[in-house]
Amino acid sequence: MALVVQKYGGTSVGDPERIRAVAEHIARTRAAGNDVVVVVSAMGKFTDELIRMADEVSPTRPPRELDMLLTSGERISMALVCMALAALGVDSASFTGSQAGIITDTDHTRAKILEMRPDRIREALDDGLVPVVAGFQGVSTERDITTLGRGGSDVTAVALAAALKADVCEIYTDVTGVFSADPRVVSKARRLAKVSFDEMMEIAATGGRVLMLRSVEFARRHGVPLHVRSSFTWEPGTWIVEEDPTMEEAVVSAITDDTSEAKVTVGGVPDRPGVAAHLFRELANHGINVDMIVQNTSERGTTDISFTVAKTDLDAARTQCLEVQESIGAAQVTTDDGIGRVSIVGAGMKSSPGVTALMFETLSEHGINIEMISTSSIRISCVVRADRVADAVRYLHTAFGLDAA
Amino acid sequence: MALVVQKYGGTSVGDPERIRAVAEHIARTRAAGNDVVVVVSAMGKFTDELIRMADEVSPTRPPRELDMLLTSGERISMALVCMALAALGVDSASFTGSQAGIITDTDHTRAKILEMRPDRIREALDDGLVPVVAGFQGVSTERDITTLGRGGSDVTAVALAAALKADVCEIYTDVTGVFSADPRVVSKARRLAKVSFDEMMEIAATGGRVLMLRSVEFARRHGVPLHVRSSFTWEPGTWIVEEDPTMEEAVVSAITDDTSEAKVTVGGVPDRPGVAAHLFRELANHGINVDMIVQNTSERGTTDISFTVAKTDLDAARTQCLEVQESIGAAQVTTDDGIGRVSIVGAGMKSSPGVTALMFETLSEHGINIEMISTSSIRISCVVRADRVADAVRYLHTAFGLDAA
Repeated sequence: MALVVQKYGGTSVGDPERIRAVAEHIARTRAAGNDVVVVVSAMGKFTDELIRMADEVSPTRPPRELDMLLTSGERISMALVCMALAALGVDSASFTGSQAGIITDTDHTRAKILEMRPDRIREALDDGLVPVVAGFQGVSTERDITTLGRGGSDVTAVALAAALKADVCEIYTDVTGVFSADPRVVSKARRLAKVSFDEMMEIAATGGRVLMLRSVEFARRHGVPLHVRSSFTWEPGTWIVEEDPTMEEAVVSAITDDTSEAKVTVGGVPDRPGVAAHLFRELANHGINVDMIVQNTSERGTTDISFTVAKTDLDAARTQCLEVQESIGAAQVTTDDGIGRVSIVGAGMKSSPGVTALMFETLSEHGINIEMISTSSIRISCVVRADRVADAVRYLHTAFGLDAA
Repeated sequence: MALVVQKYGGTSVGDPERIRAVAEHIARTRAAGNDVVVVVSAMGKFTDELIRMADEVSPTRPPRELDMLLTSGERISMALVCMALAALGVDSASFTGSQAGIITDTDHTRAKILEMRPDRIREALDDGLVPVVAGFQGVSTERDITTLGRGGSDVTAVALAAALKADVCEIYTDVTGVFSADPRVVSKARRLAKVSFDEMMEIAATGGRVLMLRSVEFARRHGVPLHVRSSFTWEPGTWIVEEDPTMEEAVVSAITDDTSEAKVTVGGVPDRPGVAAHLFRELANHGINVDMIVQNTSERGTTDISFTVAKTDLDAARTQCLEVQESIGAAQVTTDDGIGRVSIVGAGMKSSPGVTALMFETLSEHGINIEMISTSSIRISCVVRADRVADAVRYLHTAFGLDAA
């Protein structure tokens, strides 16, 4: 008998009909001899509705109160799931984040889990119940209600699976798994039956939209196998597991794309120690997350530093760069929001020479200019013009033999 | 400086505009030098909306899950009230029933408060905040979320006021106070500036719709002055206070009416001890609340027992009476759902002879037949035909000199 944690996202519990379908699947999983712990998000567009009401009420949203407001959404969906289970004769009980023992820090709207104390969930399982837990929420060390930020419900599910030593954490969503490329961009994209944690982290970090980096990291750290699958077709999806050394690895598993970032270039910077440190410390102090960073060595004692940030942080990043421009002796600060990134990810890449060359040749053949390059042992990313990103993904998907037959 | 508990009902926080108006009134109360604790209900029709969703999801509603579902409503309204207060520069913090220390029994959907531990509310007041507490909800001794049943938000407010030794508990609603009769029935009904707890309990028990009996009882037991007033006009309403022995009391303060009950008559019952006890024990065991009971002495060794129950309990009451009919030797069981009750309430009644006579004469003069009578020291109730109740209220209102000039 396995212990299965099943997480259902907002579209999976989007309306009463979907909720009944979810309850039926939970009942089937139980009937197959498994123990099940369920984690649910708020119903579909309910969170947006709450934010709209808050906007109408007040221009001010104290984070503590925003968390109190938003956490009402999961209460509704989890109570409804329990009612649907009751109609099928499955005994269940809902638990808020606080009741489930999800203890967080006090950083409202983006709290981090400090400790898991799922005693009540264990008791419920021992009593033969299906515990249905509110995703996305916890209780802080100050006994206030917190939310875990974007992708928080996945984090709840993975953290519970880790604490309960579950056999698998199933993430149900509105797609059938992780694909070799975004199917909206590449019509021949294939669903991947299995990817390693390392690959999934690179995919998540470079534009894969199915899972957030945070929950994949958490799953890898605790060795929780993930299974991403559809709550509309219920067919098997993509397993995300520890790399299996006996398996032959695909050289390239997936091509990802991301056009959510912009580029900042600080030009004519004196080439001396401490300049880059000073610049990026300033950005970090202002809460600006920097992604790719490229610095070229220079010939005439100056250098250009380019980096990418989320487009939403572009104005703040430019402001900070202009603030430090004089103190670091930079000649100019320029920005470019017309860029995009295309990446190839594959665990087999580290033992396959020629992958980099093939990527660059493919882009070059189609007249796509590479503006920045960054690499890890299992990923290569190139910044290109945003309007060539989709082409780049398609050409690379074909070049690396990923097109479905 | 006074400590004021303010309770806002569903219509008072029915939409963003009303929520902003409530926040402004809280800010005014604070600016006048008072400490304020706020209790809120769910927004207007939100609870109905949740029940409708539950209906669509499942024919089964486990009470524990129904409570989890319904308590989401107050979270939304209290978070929004806090946001509106923040916009006015008033620091506040919302608290669930559990966080406010409202400990109940485990009787889901109609839990009773066992203990109040409002430590966090006291701390918030000490920190200069306005605590905004979810009405209607608590946490059970089993650590599950409970609701307090009908009128539960008023109970929350009164219980908090008692525990915090507040100077007044203000109940904000969509009417301007307690009236000498239902203004929809009697156009000349007057708002009462002050009524005693005893009178208010009789008014609530016999058809007054502004306050539930339960919260008035609670307030009387703990000596919490109530002030029922409008959140639409904000003008002073009706004070409900301890009877003031130095004050001259109105002989009759209010005429109430109630057409929500039906009558059951168990006829031809042998007139011997234990028969009534057996009958009403059976009804109580099946959760049927009996209101008025009338038994006439008999001449031929048998008697008729009549009683009233809520119309919603009529079928169940008839079934139980038929069940015991044989064992108690009753001749027949008849029911009548065409009845109504008119009552006169007044603390001065006990020292004024002739009130009963005037009531009966007034009804008689207008051809209204009295079918049952029940009295307390400060109330007389008559059951009449339902279609004559409104007439009866109007005639009595005039006869007892209550018509507004």
